[in-house]
Amino acid sequence: MKVRVAGRLRDYKTVWMERGRVRMIDQRLLPERFRIHTARTVGEVAKAIREMVVRGAPAIGAAAAYGMALGALARDNVMKDAALLLRTRPTAHDLSYAVREMERAIRSGWDPVAAAQKYARNLEAVCLEIGRQGEPLLEGGSTVLTHCNAGALATVDHGTALAPIRRAHRRKKRLFVYVDETRPRLQGAKLTAWELKQEGIDYAIISDSAAGYYLLQGKVDCVLVGADRITSSGDFANKVGTYPLAVLAKENGVPFYVAAPRSTFDFTIDHWKQIPIEERDPLEVLKIEDRRIAPVGAEARNPAFDVTPGRYVTKFVTERGLFSPKQVHGLASVKP
Amino acid sequence: MKVRVAGRLRDYKTVWMERGRVRMIDQRLLPERFRIHTARTVGEVAKAIREMVVRGAPAIGAAAAYGMALGALARDNVMKDAALLLRTRPTAHDLSYAVREMERAIRSGWDPVAAAQKYARNLEAVCLEIGRQGEPLLEGGSTVLTHCNAGALATVDHGTALAPIRRAHRRKKRLFVYVDETRPRLQGAKLTAWELKQEGIDYAIISDSAAGYYLLQGKVDCVLVGADRITSSGDFANKVGTYPLAVLAKENGVPFYVAAPRSTFDFTIDHWKQIPIEERDPLEVLKIEDRRIAPVGAEARNPAFDVTPGRYVTKFVTERGLFSPKQVHGLASVKP
Repeated sequence: MKVRVAGRLRDYKTVWMERGRVRMIDQRLLPERFRIHTARTVGEVAKAIREMVVRGAPAIGAAAAYGMALGALARDNVMKDAALLLRTRPTAHDLSYAVREMERAIRSGWDPVAAAQKYARNLEAVCLEIGRQGEPLLEGGSTVLTHCNAGALATVDHGTALAPIRRAHRRKKRLFVYVDETRPRLQGAKLTAWELKQEGIDYAIISDSAAGYYLLQGKVDCVLVGADRITSSGDFANKVGTYPLAVLAKENGVPFYVAAPRSTFDFTIDHWKQIPIEERDPLEVLKIEDRRIAPVGAEARNPAFDVTPGRYVTKFVTERGLFSPKQVHGLASVKP
Repeated sequence: MKVRVAGRLRDYKTVWMERGRVRMIDQRLLPERFRIHTARTVGEVAKAIREMVVRGAPAIGAAAAYGMALGALARDNVMKDAALLLRTRPTAHDLSYAVREMERAIRSGWDPVAAAQKYARNLEAVCLEIGRQGEPLLEGGSTVLTHCNAGALATVDHGTALAPIRRAHRRKKRLFVYVDETRPRLQGAKLTAWELKQEGIDYAIISDSAAGYYLLQGKVDCVLVGADRITSSGDFANKVGTYPLAVLAKENGVPFYVAAPRSTFDFTIDHWKQIPIEERDPLEVLKIEDRRIAPVGAEARNPAFDVTPGRYVTKFVTERGLFSPKQVHGLASVKP
């Protein structure tokens, strides 16, 4: 992605490897500060994933692949490294997908760094293809609603949900994007708004709960989000707040699209109840930017994701084309 | 309401009049600080409403009634005072209701202070009655979801949506309340959590967008909210984020209740499109507590309310009993 740093336009990936270190854009600091975070060991990569220096299912997968490469360079126990990474965040399927791929590559005697780089480069190509597959769904002059960040920062580049939007914009389609701020961690207001601004795409940030008002008024032409884990029935997990959008879209006759690579699909399960949902620190709800917003001692709950039954999805947008929820199981036999 | 101030339990109203001044709990400072704000003129009352020192449709009505009384004491032009107050916030119907009532009282030669006090005391009695009418809807051991603050702080005392909850709690029914934090101004996290904590009622604050996740899992037994304006068809406006809850409740077979006094009903209109929706400063979305959360120069939209078609409402809970949306028009002929 193009990033303007100190007045100069430079090209960045969300996560990459150089000179035996894993480097990543520190997403906790955006949009105020653009800083590159460095991890020197698999433990430091695991910490970066856990603390959300890097987040977004596909980006977590790429970071984990690089983490496995660091471990292999240090002659770590492969199973131990895999277990360490798998413990960081439970919901994103790309994490286990990437770790398994790297385990296989390392055991097969591949160069671990080359294998991780291949994983990341393939993900970039996959996201470009998701952009190509999804772009025809977006009509010129239309308004898209998105949630959280499923952009370049959630992948290695280009994004999942933002890939068709970027492509449509580059092909001179005029779009307007409503960006849910996405409490508690505000990835919409902080990351998606930042990406759209860099790209010159028109948008407005809204409170998550304002999305319904625009849908009821007929001001949204489609909803387009990413995913963290998709089951073989089309039930899926994504950032908390996705399920309400899916229900509101259906209620108002608005198409609801989910953009994700093959690596986000978990064909071992077929119901949302089987998806592990991460419950994060209630302080993420009780504080905003270290400032307390609720009474001292207040109780809070903080599920990081929610689940949406497949019946609410119009189409899954993948690098292999568009799939209705009922067609998803067919993707299982397609080679990634 | 009982408030613990400096270790002592004292009884407070949200807004009242003493020695020719209007006094009100400053709701911008809660829960961190408990401070009483003083308005000496109708202009100062209008400013307090506009800046949300006092908020919540019924409380705005009571504050406006006291404002009209201050104006009458100062021998202001009654029509000018009325116009000044009516301009403060467009959505709450109680505002115009209270101003009209006071205009009539002043023109009829009533003591303006006594008339305003009667308005406020009547509202207190009405809220107690809403509590009595609504309490049977809440089963012991059940979980209620609420949005924004429709508590004592949104009225003069007791609340609208919180009145049945308070009454059930005092009658030893065990309840659990999910409190939507209610972005952008966080009245749920700040005010409702504060009220429930003072009262000793179990609750947890959640991000607004997490409500759907609990509804889908069957963990919510009913949704109970207040209202800012209700039309004769049952379409109504309330804090932005109410409409998504209504749709999600219906989708999951959960009853959706709206508690409001007769003064919130506007029988001159019958469709949500006729309700004026206040659009507030985008900075309320772009900043939280004076801290910027989005890129500099970012765009945002900030509708303060949304609208919900009557068909999503199970019952309106009023001081005159429970009404289905189709029965609402019958309330028009009932004397307040």
